[in-house]
Amino acid sequence: MRNPRTPIRLAGITALLLSSAVTAQPVPSAAELAQQGNDPAWAITRDLTTEIGPRMPGTESEAAARRWATRRLQAMGFANVREEAFDMPVWVRGAEEAWLTGPLVPQKLAITALGNSASTGAKGIEGEIAYFESFDALAAAPAASVKGKIVFIDHQMKPAQDGSGYGYYGRGRFSGPNVAAQKGAIAIVIRSIGTDSHRNPHTGVTNFDAGVKPIPAGAISNPDADQLVRQWRRAQPVRSDEAALLTMKLILTPQNLGIRKSGNVIAEVPGSDRGASPVIIACHLDSWDLGTGAIDDAAGCGIITAAANHVMTAGQPRRTIRILWAGAEEVGVFGGKAYFERHGEQKHAVALESDFGADRVWRIDFKLPDSAKPLADRLTAAVAPFGVVRGRQPASGGADIGALVAAGVPTIDLAQDGTRYFDLHHTPDDTLDKIDPVQLRQNVAVWSATLAILANSSDAELP
Amino acid sequence: MRNPRTPIRLAGITALLLSSAVTAQPVPSAAELAQQGNDPAWAITRDLTTEIGPRMPGTESEAAARRWATRRLQAMGFANVREEAFDMPVWVRGAEEAWLTGPLVPQKLAITALGNSASTGAKGIEGEIAYFESFDALAAAPAASVKGKIVFIDHQMKPAQDGSGYGYYGRGRFSGPNVAAQKGAIAIVIRSIGTDSHRNPHTGVTNFDAGVKPIPAGAISNPDADQLVRQWRRAQPVRSDEAALLTMKLILTPQNLGIRKSGNVIAEVPGSDRGASPVIIACHLDSWDLGTGAIDDAAGCGIITAAANHVMTAGQPRRTIRILWAGAEEVGVFGGKAYFERHGEQKHAVALESDFGADRVWRIDFKLPDSAKPLADRLTAAVAPFGVVRGRQPASGGADIGALVAAGVPTIDLAQDGTRYFDLHHTPDDTLDKIDPVQLRQNVAVWSATLAILANSSDAELP
Repeated sequence: MRNPRTPIRLAGITALLLSSAVTAQPVPSAAELAQQGNDPAWAITRDLTTEIGPRMPGTESEAAARRWATRRLQAMGFANVREEAFDMPVWVRGAEEAWLTGPLVPQKLAITALGNSASTGAKGIEGEIAYFESFDALAAAPAASVKGKIVFIDHQMKPAQDGSGYGYYGRGRFSGPNVAAQKGAIAIVIRSIGTDSHRNPHTGVTNFDAGVKPIPAGAISNPDADQLVRQWRRAQPVRSDEAALLTMKLILTPQNLGIRKSGNVIAEVPGSDRGASPVIIACHLDSWDLGTGAIDDAAGCGIITAAANHVMTAGQPRRTIRILWAGAEEVGVFGGKAYFERHGEQKHAVALESDFGADRVWRIDFKLPDSAKPLADRLTAAVAPFGVVRGRQPASGGADIGALVAAGVPTIDLAQDGTRYFDLHHTPDDTLDKIDPVQLRQNVAVWSATLAILANSSDAELP
Repeated sequence: MRNPRTPIRLAGITALLLSSAVTAQPVPSAAELAQQGNDPAWAITRDLTTEIGPRMPGTESEAAARRWATRRLQAMGFANVREEAFDMPVWVRGAEEAWLTGPLVPQKLAITALGNSASTGAKGIEGEIAYFESFDALAAAPAASVKGKIVFIDHQMKPAQDGSGYGYYGRGRFSGPNVAAQKGAIAIVIRSIGTDSHRNPHTGVTNFDAGVKPIPAGAISNPDADQLVRQWRRAQPVRSDEAALLTMKLILTPQNLGIRKSGNVIAEVPGSDRGASPVIIACHLDSWDLGTGAIDDAAGCGIITAAANHVMTAGQPRRTIRILWAGAEEVGVFGGKAYFERHGEQKHAVALESDFGADRVWRIDFKLPDSAKPLADRLTAAVAPFGVVRGRQPASGGADIGALVAAGVPTIDLAQDGTRYFDLHHTPDDTLDKIDPVQLRQNVAVWSATLAILANSSDAELP
């Protein structure tokens, strides 16, 4: 059984924020500003999710979000605010319904289509369930056990503070549909890649290899997957020459709308040294359509932008800070790739991203040149008062700065607590009420402390 | 902000169960049996929710549940297992969708129709929101402020261990639609009568007075209500001569199917004294259609039936125990009323009901004749080892035994912890994974201890 988990205790964080705040100075630092007065991260998160809501890549909602973002970033006093458009293939959700149709009384399931799912057509399809306990079990299965059936992958994701299970369990979503299609399945339904137990399925993108014809692909909520499994056990044959027969009806009618416009929104805090390479900080502006994209990733945009705002207020930095609110991350990182195509040749001092919710930063990881060892030590000391510890593994960056990092740009991870992130990730429940303002503000304080140091780093430390 | 609450700590209960269990006796009591081996409450709850699922009153699903119940009660060895049919008006859900359509970017809301809601027609309706912070505010408003609009009631229910807020906050659902219709509203949407913060709206019945034409009536989830309120604030006019204008589109297409058959399922443990009046214990077999009716009220049927089973196993009681799995409770207590019409003239010793989830019993309340004072003391002592304390208010009974209690039948409440009950009540989230087997078993132990004493009480103590 899965119960709601205990909210993270915040008394310690609050105490830290208050104790730091009382050390008044004539000119407050960016980190001090982050702990007082204005809370632009909360304001951005609240207003973007309220006034725009879901921001599906390539849709009019995402375009409205770009216009909103441009106005907001200009109003905050950033320079060079602009949209940079790019083209992308657009997929949108249609009807989505599913039922367990036999051998027991028909029961409706809470289902959602995965991004790039094919359509069942309006009348839907019905078929036998082919059960697999994991992606590995499906990958190892002979095609004959799958052909003509609806594949079900049962693997139950477990929560972890660093989110490390996403890659392992997520294969059922990332690759399961492609493998099922290759083996001749008529559709695939997976247990949601999520750690909650609510009737809210987790969507997310899947991809089919070139030459593989997409099949309908959906995710059911954890309670629905539990129900399917209990019915599956009851459907097992008594005699070995009888077939198990649990049947499902599926209606998923998403559509591919072809190539449409999306775009990145960029803003800057101009540095005093025009020859210095910029620090780039990223989030993504688009979101899945089921919720309002509060933790994924309005909060990330709020955090990085608030930090840049506090650094700007504390005094002009040496390096330019470039803020990237990337478009179309969820369905294939189109915004991050477009940024790299356009700006990848430029030198970047360091790249950071916030795209893992709004819970507190608990660890800092580095991937820096050897010249930056003293810089890493200074950063470690600067974030320690906020309860952040140094990790032992290299930083990995984030999706939207992935191309930059792959090309060698240094990166730092301000790793957020992901213990409850996959309770909400890509569900209808990704809404503003899930954001804890105290933890959100801790993020901004840690980012402000980090960004102030990075934006004033020397050319000897960073490229 | 509302966060998921901490699960109730169970270590104490587990310790109690174990410490009682080690007091071995040659013939175990019903309460001892409840703490060992078989767990029929869990088995009933699991199997009914898995094999039948939602059990909407008057539908084929509820009829399937009666057939299932009859088979199960017979298999458990109860006597006189039978269905007692009755007629009732049947209402079923249709399409349900809603959007905030202006002045901001249109956003979809998670909505569900209330039982007895009228239909908007397939094309839906669109109108201005008339905002009210509570039912009382709506009741006090002039009709002119409501006429032609879609009423919204914002009152946010707060959790309480004894569930005492349901009556107060629930008026928005019970009576809000009737009042809105009387004042000329075209529809009403309420903030769910619920204490969670998930995108799962809470359904439940509403009633229109004779002569009042029903209007479409729905509930939106708490996060959706939060969003509506934030948009409402942004839609306030700058000048006093301008109207606030937040608009909503609503599609609700429920149907009244007319009079259909429902029924109660009854089973008995025959008493040794055929002249003694029976003890009646009740739950309800029907459920709302959004979830599988695990906490409401498969668990209640599991608890009372397990207790009767343990009393039967421990040795034949003096009084007959009559088990009532009532039909059609959710939409108007049709089963309880039908039982009373058929059996209300018979003498009943005492009536008890379990219909408040599956969390632990924490309090015992009495409404007994003066002759039963020593009996109440014995019962208080018998349940104390399970962490149950005596309350200071009279017992109220339960919906399905309400007519009996109103007619003077004594009653006892084994009050369950309702702190998280209204997180789940009448939502898609009322599913088996929400049942805590340890707390469920504590219920059965408390019920077994209570029922053993009641079923062996003397005629001098109870009528």
